[in-house]
Amino acid sequence: MNATIYRSAINIAATCGLYLSLSMLIPVAVNLYYGHHDWKNFLISAVVVGGFSLITAAATQAGPPPFTKKMGFLLVNLLWVVFSLVGAIPLWLSSIDLDFSQALFEAVSAITTTGSTVIVGLDHAPPGLLMWRSMLHWLGGIGIVALGLFVMPYLRVGGMSFFKMESSETNEKPFARIATYTRAFIVVYIGITLVCAITYNVLGMSRFDAINHAMSTVATGGFSTHDASFGYFNNSALLWAGTFFMTVCSLPFSILIVLVVRGRLDTLRDPQIVVFLGYLAAFAIAIAIYHRIANGVDFHDAITHSFFTMASILSTTGMASQDYTQWGPFVAALCLFATFMGGCAGSTAGGIKAYRFVIIFNSIRSGLYKLIYPNGIHAVRYGKITVEQDTQRTVFLFFCTYLLLWVIGSVALSALGHDVLTALSSVVTALSNVGPGIGPVVGPAGNFSTFDDASLYVLSLMMLLGRLEVLTVLVILTPLFWKS
Amino acid sequence: MNATIYRSAINIAATCGLYLSLSMLIPVAVNLYYGHHDWKNFLISAVVVGGFSLITAAATQAGPPPFTKKMGFLLVNLLWVVFSLVGAIPLWLSSIDLDFSQALFEAVSAITTTGSTVIVGLDHAPPGLLMWRSMLHWLGGIGIVALGLFVMPYLRVGGMSFFKMESSETNEKPFARIATYTRAFIVVYIGITLVCAITYNVLGMSRFDAINHAMSTVATGGFSTHDASFGYFNNSALLWAGTFFMTVCSLPFSILIVLVVRGRLDTLRDPQIVVFLGYLAAFAIAIAIYHRIANGVDFHDAITHSFFTMASILSTTGMASQDYTQWGPFVAALCLFATFMGGCAGSTAGGIKAYRFVIIFNSIRSGLYKLIYPNGIHAVRYGKITVEQDTQRTVFLFFCTYLLLWVIGSVALSALGHDVLTALSSVVTALSNVGPGIGPVVGPAGNFSTFDDASLYVLSLMMLLGRLEVLTVLVILTPLFWKS
Repeated sequence: MNATIYRSAINIAATCGLYLSLSMLIPVAVNLYYGHHDWKNFLISAVVVGGFSLITAAATQAGPPPFTKKMGFLLVNLLWVVFSLVGAIPLWLSSIDLDFSQALFEAVSAITTTGSTVIVGLDHAPPGLLMWRSMLHWLGGIGIVALGLFVMPYLRVGGMSFFKMESSETNEKPFARIATYTRAFIVVYIGITLVCAITYNVLGMSRFDAINHAMSTVATGGFSTHDASFGYFNNSALLWAGTFFMTVCSLPFSILIVLVVRGRLDTLRDPQIVVFLGYLAAFAIAIAIYHRIANGVDFHDAITHSFFTMASILSTTGMASQDYTQWGPFVAALCLFATFMGGCAGSTAGGIKAYRFVIIFNSIRSGLYKLIYPNGIHAVRYGKITVEQDTQRTVFLFFCTYLLLWVIGSVALSALGHDVLTALSSVVTALSNVGPGIGPVVGPAGNFSTFDDASLYVLSLMMLLGRLEVLTVLVILTPLFWKS
Repeated sequence: MNATIYRSAINIAATCGLYLSLSMLIPVAVNLYYGHHDWKNFLISAVVVGGFSLITAAATQAGPPPFTKKMGFLLVNLLWVVFSLVGAIPLWLSSIDLDFSQALFEAVSAITTTGSTVIVGLDHAPPGLLMWRSMLHWLGGIGIVALGLFVMPYLRVGGMSFFKMESSETNEKPFARIATYTRAFIVVYIGITLVCAITYNVLGMSRFDAINHAMSTVATGGFSTHDASFGYFNNSALLWAGTFFMTVCSLPFSILIVLVVRGRLDTLRDPQIVVFLGYLAAFAIAIAIYHRIANGVDFHDAITHSFFTMASILSTTGMASQDYTQWGPFVAALCLFATFMGGCAGSTAGGIKAYRFVIIFNSIRSGLYKLIYPNGIHAVRYGKITVEQDTQRTVFLFFCTYLLLWVIGSVALSALGHDVLTALSSVVTALSNVGPGIGPVVGPAGNFSTFDDASLYVLSLMMLLGRLEVLTVLVILTPLFWKS
């Protein structure tokens, strides 16, 4: 049984590796188009990875894979590791001379849609390489939405089972439904990317910049083609467009699909959406007012940059229009905590996520009531639905585990010599898949190029842990999982 | 009904105020003995507070108080506010010229056994004032143990109901048991204080210093009679004595009583004690090794200071032998996180506390198992006892609320102009009743004298919230509580 599972999992991973190697032909083409000699390195990567994947896939060919929970956990972990390794190879071989730890960090950052970078001099980097980074973001975005829609509810990780309800209400054939749903999702995902790219292009980005930033935006990734990120364009229409698309892509895709396909606006009344948009607006307005008063900035400027910054952090994109950590300690503190928060479940956004805050907040309220009237009934609600004890428990488990990993990671980074604030903020930005941290080294004006190998590996692990909702990774680290 | 409750609560609070005013005669005597003119200010305070309390107590005299949960919550909050205000008055009137916000902060810090100070120049401060600070620590320590032993289990706050079990197993007359228990506790508390004071005196402290530091140690408070705290004595035997007594006073007093009265060592196998001593030893040894390697310090010195520092922080005492935040970022980060942790329930220590970590950790483990085998039974255990869902929930609620308050407080302090690390660490040190934070301003070599009024009020509130296990205070802030 276990042998079948491993065989099937490796087979699926190798098949995905094969597709990923084929997609390396796009950077080859881009480099050729712009006349950059780096095309050879991408072609070599494509051939090597493709060949290796093909052989592995052929060697492990088998019947239809067994659909068990064990298979689910194993496959999810394996896929993201394989994507990261395959993604790292062309970066490692490329002409910009990265160490393996750096290439892996960059690939993990791409595929987990984090957006932290070790590359300095993006403005003059090979165009194929820039395209590859954006593509990994974009594919990672598809992966994570698919995971959230189809796999996580089944694995019941971190309270995600909560979002199974809608689909399990209708008893149609599940595979037919999944196929329809997948098609709708892909159409919506590609559609938003195109609309975003065209908007960026119309508002002033070059076509190349527009495509790259659109892929990065829709995946809520954060990689840019310029060291100054969105600040490079110095264009407030572009900032508002970015704010809009980052926010939209932090909403659950299931709801975006219903919205696009059936035009039903009422689905936006999902409590997690209301709460997410609520804290986004509240934080952005608070920062704008503070920025206006403390730094004497023109209010239009203040509100443009504050909304962009907050949308960027809360959507876990991580693009920057300015070094907001210089606006004052209030902004730095708020951004640090916002880095934990994240967007909605079922989107490309990471972090703890709004629906968990809804459940935690309502649990606290119900708990306080229970202290006063121990025998009264104070159900914890999510909108009109009563949240079961079990779901509450899973949400709390996720929350505690998330913070525990943050603590362990921060202590590890500080032991490696980073100052406390750099350690704290770079670990949370990795876990939440945001991108920039706080302080001169990892803040929006800095990057991770000066980090040692060990720190990069720790952060790569944190990005993967965060992206896979923490518990998915921890499950396969328990001895029980490996018992037959 | 409500009127009776308010009347009774005020009556009890006024009676306590009366006792507290009588205890001001001790600083009067101390100042007279050392020939310091400040005795007058203490005498005035005693007369004013005593008179006011007497009148209030007489005006609200009534039959035996109604024992309801509402009364419990109200009384606990009222008592700590009254203690703080009464404690602040002689500090405010004293010759060292404090603002009211500073005097209140100092008194709250004393009564909550936190130990953060706004006073610079302790070495030359009026001896009666130093004695008053230590006395408030010591009395606050009695208050909190009494609360943990008798009131909190009844109010079922934050999973404290857990520790009711032992006493509810035996069905003796409850009041007779409480009286016996109280007597035993007072004897043990005074006993440890005396042994501690004599030890300090024998090892080199002056009698005055020994008495003050003993009261501060046993209450796990942290006030010293010197700006340099324990560092002033430069004596490693004293540091080890401090380490020992701080650690002992972080253990549950119920267990210390059984240990002293019946000589039963096996009670020390309580999981919270094992875990508390475990993380204390682990952190101290890690820091000693780091300190030895990174700073080339003699190992004996490194281990002496690291054990003292960790015992000081984890017991939430907050005395300092050196500025440990200068030992390196690893130490600073570990100390920051240790500030959240705290000692055992039923002691004078604050923080999140070891038993909650035991429950959270076991819940995470059981949750991971449940993800793999959803239908398996994976009870969460505390030692040999199964932790009920309800207790788990309360622990998680406490944990989330604690962190939420930390976030709110930190954002507030950063908005008031403090840098991020100062804001983060001064709020957690207040919430956990530790004392020092991280960084040059509030670190072990700094103090809170430069803080503005608003910041001092925020931190005073945080100290009270933390001391009363957070939820006790939040309960009375819900509208439901005030409905008749």
